[in-house]
Amino acid sequence: MLVKRVCIVGVGLMGGSMALALRLAQRTTVPRFPLHLTLVDRDPKTREAVKNLANVVTADFAEGVAEAELVILATPVRTVVHLLGELARIRPFGCMVMDIGSSKAAIENAMNHLPATFQAIGGHPMCGRETAGFSAATPDLFRKQTFVLCRNARTTPAIEEQAHRIVNLIGANLLLLPAELHDNIVAVVSHLPYVVAAALMRNAATMGDEHVWLVSSTGFRDTSRISGTDPTMMLDILLTNKTAVLDQLAHYQADLSALQKFIETEDEVGLRQWLTETQKQYLEYRRNKR
Amino acid sequence: MLVKRVCIVGVGLMGGSMALALRLAQRTTVPRFPLHLTLVDRDPKTREAVKNLANVVTADFAEGVAEAELVILATPVRTVVHLLGELARIRPFGCMVMDIGSSKAAIENAMNHLPATFQAIGGHPMCGRETAGFSAATPDLFRKQTFVLCRNARTTPAIEEQAHRIVNLIGANLLLLPAELHDNIVAVVSHLPYVVAAALMRNAATMGDEHVWLVSSTGFRDTSRISGTDPTMMLDILLTNKTAVLDQLAHYQADLSALQKFIETEDEVGLRQWLTETQKQYLEYRRNKR
Repeated sequence: MLVKRVCIVGVGLMGGSMALALRLAQRTTVPRFPLHLTLVDRDPKTREAVKNLANVVTADFAEGVAEAELVILATPVRTVVHLLGELARIRPFGCMVMDIGSSKAAIENAMNHLPATFQAIGGHPMCGRETAGFSAATPDLFRKQTFVLCRNARTTPAIEEQAHRIVNLIGANLLLLPAELHDNIVAVVSHLPYVVAAALMRNAATMGDEHVWLVSSTGFRDTSRISGTDPTMMLDILLTNKTAVLDQLAHYQADLSALQKFIETEDEVGLRQWLTETQKQYLEYRRNKR
Repeated sequence: MLVKRVCIVGVGLMGGSMALALRLAQRTTVPRFPLHLTLVDRDPKTREAVKNLANVVTADFAEGVAEAELVILATPVRTVVHLLGELARIRPFGCMVMDIGSSKAAIENAMNHLPATFQAIGGHPMCGRETAGFSAATPDLFRKQTFVLCRNARTTPAIEEQAHRIVNLIGANLLLLPAELHDNIVAVVSHLPYVVAAALMRNAATMGDEHVWLVSSTGFRDTSRISGTDPTMMLDILLTNKTAVLDQLAHYQADLSALQKFIETEDEVGLRQWLTETQKQYLEYRRNKR
């Protein structure tokens, strides 16, 4: 059973989709379960857009979380860390708290420092879009997508059960991972892809020839797509997952340099091997994703 | 009016889609125009697959082009260059020839060296897929896509008119560019994106953790997609467009290094500017593509 009083803080793409998905689940589950939903967002336009979705809509964090049984933090990572400190102050007798931030070690650390009256778990749904904000939110964003949960010192069976319940209600697939492993993996499959796409977009934009966009096709479009990601969210990710991101960047650039060398020296044997290996890895990945 | 006797050499994704698109155009144009289509491919399975599409199917280049009025070369770039030399030998009294290879300067050079009895033009449809071969071919591959034509010393009004005719019949949008500018632009919007996607795929594949593919989502999928591109085609592209590709790679890596520095030193101002600029460039690009 999901607790009744849920408060989602940050009603952007992720928090908004979570709110929509929980409401949809509530309305389509027989028998309906009670859900008193509070949404907290500092943007007046967002608050206006979600006024029919929630029981309470507010700009004030303290007001929003005051009576919540479960608080879901859906802001950029460093704001999650900050709000966990606030929460300890506002709710000294504790509550259940979960977050859906994009890197987990910094949040795990903050959750470990919560008073023992709190029950907490880290979460990260592996889905996203290059467009941010509630206007891009959709109730089926999480459907059939992996949802990572990370335990910490404040994780109890009760908060873990609530998290499982949510993952189930929104149609996602649960995966339990330690925060550090999670952060290493997302550096590889999410943060490095952003960096790669971003540098590609910058490279094309700075060419400054009017024909560039005319000639660009689906390959460029897909490879550069996530360069549109929200800068504030990305800033927090790159700084809170600094070590793993820098490791992957170094590894990535070393591989690019190897390729560069093959092309420079016209080493056909080395180049063909690099290209053939890569295609094989792609095919292997596609097999694993089906 | 399109000439009647057309020979397409190399019936992969591009050549095969060209054959399908021309046949479809022939059958849906009123009045129907005459089209005697010869397809040349060295793969017996491909020849079997296209036997109902063509009037003549053969593995033999000399036989295929012997009576063609227009030869369309749709093989990897260095094979195009080689076949242009063969063509000069086989058809000393000349014919019309066009190619659809992915880099244009090396082909322009080879076309310039054709005997003056030949009429020639370079072509490059800006569309593609990460899956190669005739089985991936489709008659609408070129529809509404940019089709670049590059003139050379052997370009006459007659071959240029034939090329325009083809671009029109297959539903593409014509863009005339000098070969060198074409090659610089595709290094930016096509060849660098491949390299970027390939190194990303390699980075993930070498992490060697079973959870990597489970955690990966649409961002990784889209950013890495073109790493599946055919190695032989890519080898020819990277070697025949060496200078432009190396220039773009150097520029790209310098930008990555700048980002790396921002993260390392936790320079929030510099990092935020980098991220914000990038998102702006992405939004500008999307506006231009609509």
